[in-house]
Amino acid sequence: MSNNPKIMTIRTGILEENDRRAQILRRNFAKNKTTVINVVSSPGSGKTELLTVVSRELITKGLHVCAIVGDLSTDHDAKRLASSGAHTYQINTHGACHLDARMVKQGLKTLPWRDADILFIENVGNLVCPASYDLGETKRMVLMAVTEGEDKPLKYPTMFHSADICVISKIDLASVAEFDEQKAIQNIYDVNPDILIVKTSAKKRIGIEELVTNLLAK
Amino acid sequence: MSNNPKIMTIRTGILEENDRRAQILRRNFAKNKTTVINVVSSPGSGKTELLTVVSRELITKGLHVCAIVGDLSTDHDAKRLASSGAHTYQINTHGACHLDARMVKQGLKTLPWRDADILFIENVGNLVCPASYDLGETKRMVLMAVTEGEDKPLKYPTMFHSADICVISKIDLASVAEFDEQKAIQNIYDVNPDILIVKTSAKKRIGIEELVTNLLAK
Repeated sequence: MSNNPKIMTIRTGILEENDRRAQILRRNFAKNKTTVINVVSSPGSGKTELLTVVSRELITKGLHVCAIVGDLSTDHDAKRLASSGAHTYQINTHGACHLDARMVKQGLKTLPWRDADILFIENVGNLVCPASYDLGETKRMVLMAVTEGEDKPLKYPTMFHSADICVISKIDLASVAEFDEQKAIQNIYDVNPDILIVKTSAKKRIGIEELVTNLLAK
Repeated sequence: MSNNPKIMTIRTGILEENDRRAQILRRNFAKNKTTVINVVSSPGSGKTELLTVVSRELITKGLHVCAIVGDLSTDHDAKRLASSGAHTYQINTHGACHLDARMVKQGLKTLPWRDADILFIENVGNLVCPASYDLGETKRMVLMAVTEGEDKPLKYPTMFHSADICVISKIDLASVAEFDEQKAIQNIYDVNPDILIVKTSAKKRIGIEELVTNLLAK
């Protein structure tokens, strides 16, 4: 996102176009009864590891899972996520700092998403730009690792304000990272009083069942 | 950064304009013998904590330190950094995902930078967009915390390719984060064989002296 006036004018048009595309996606997802989760965070907050564990859990319950993974480069994350059994499609943005609704539509063409109960869209690791791009999701989920400190909601308010679920990830490292959980939760609620907070550790399988229940809740 | 063709065309013009402004800054910094470090990373990699410790060390050695701190919102980081004794100026980008040369020029007006031996520019926490914006810096330093995993250089190649120094931060957490240091170093060199790597922990005062020496090296 840029604050240059020339880019801002064009961005307004692009965002309006993106919003229109996202609304069409949203209607199609709803008609098909597919829950779509747009997953956003800083680089390295543990999106892929968490989604791999959650997808495995959902598949064990007999649900069908698809995933679209966005990265500037490499297909490492898609390969990791596919190991869960989810049908996975990698989008390489080649420098672009976010996914948009057009890219998601493109990704859907090669995925059996109409059979899916749940579709995860793992966005590019970036707490700024993806906040402005609606992907037609049912819910937006932002991760914040305990190792990133407590102040991220205050410093990246648009992202935390636009999310439905906030996952405090890598909770097993809270004590060694000297993470002040109460302060973090206060900061999250200060920016978004309606958000649902779930604490997880993909590594130690903490909070996974609670997250799965909330993802599937209507 | 967007890959939309309309935005890309305008961006080329904006980047050229930014490059021109940055070259003027670079000449002024060189004429004044001020070493300028553009500090970039993901959100929460520990830029502010490291710069606070490093600034304190430099000031103890009798050097003059200034700092410009970029954030979308809040002035928390500037306040923390100012506690080191460095003259500090906060830029709030109000949604913009990077600093540019124009903002830096603006920040310089209120800082006694002509007396400074070293000027730190702490960029917005974002591994994508700041990579494209030259700030007239002498050196670019990218941080990568051990808690973010080993693959960041491969997934954000432009940033790591454009940096002169890579700091592997929070090294005191390497073991609990199960960080594979050899793999990380290989990934960094794969993207940028000429980069200098320094391992640090601001909390445990590891690597600070080595980093200071390298920052001041011509």
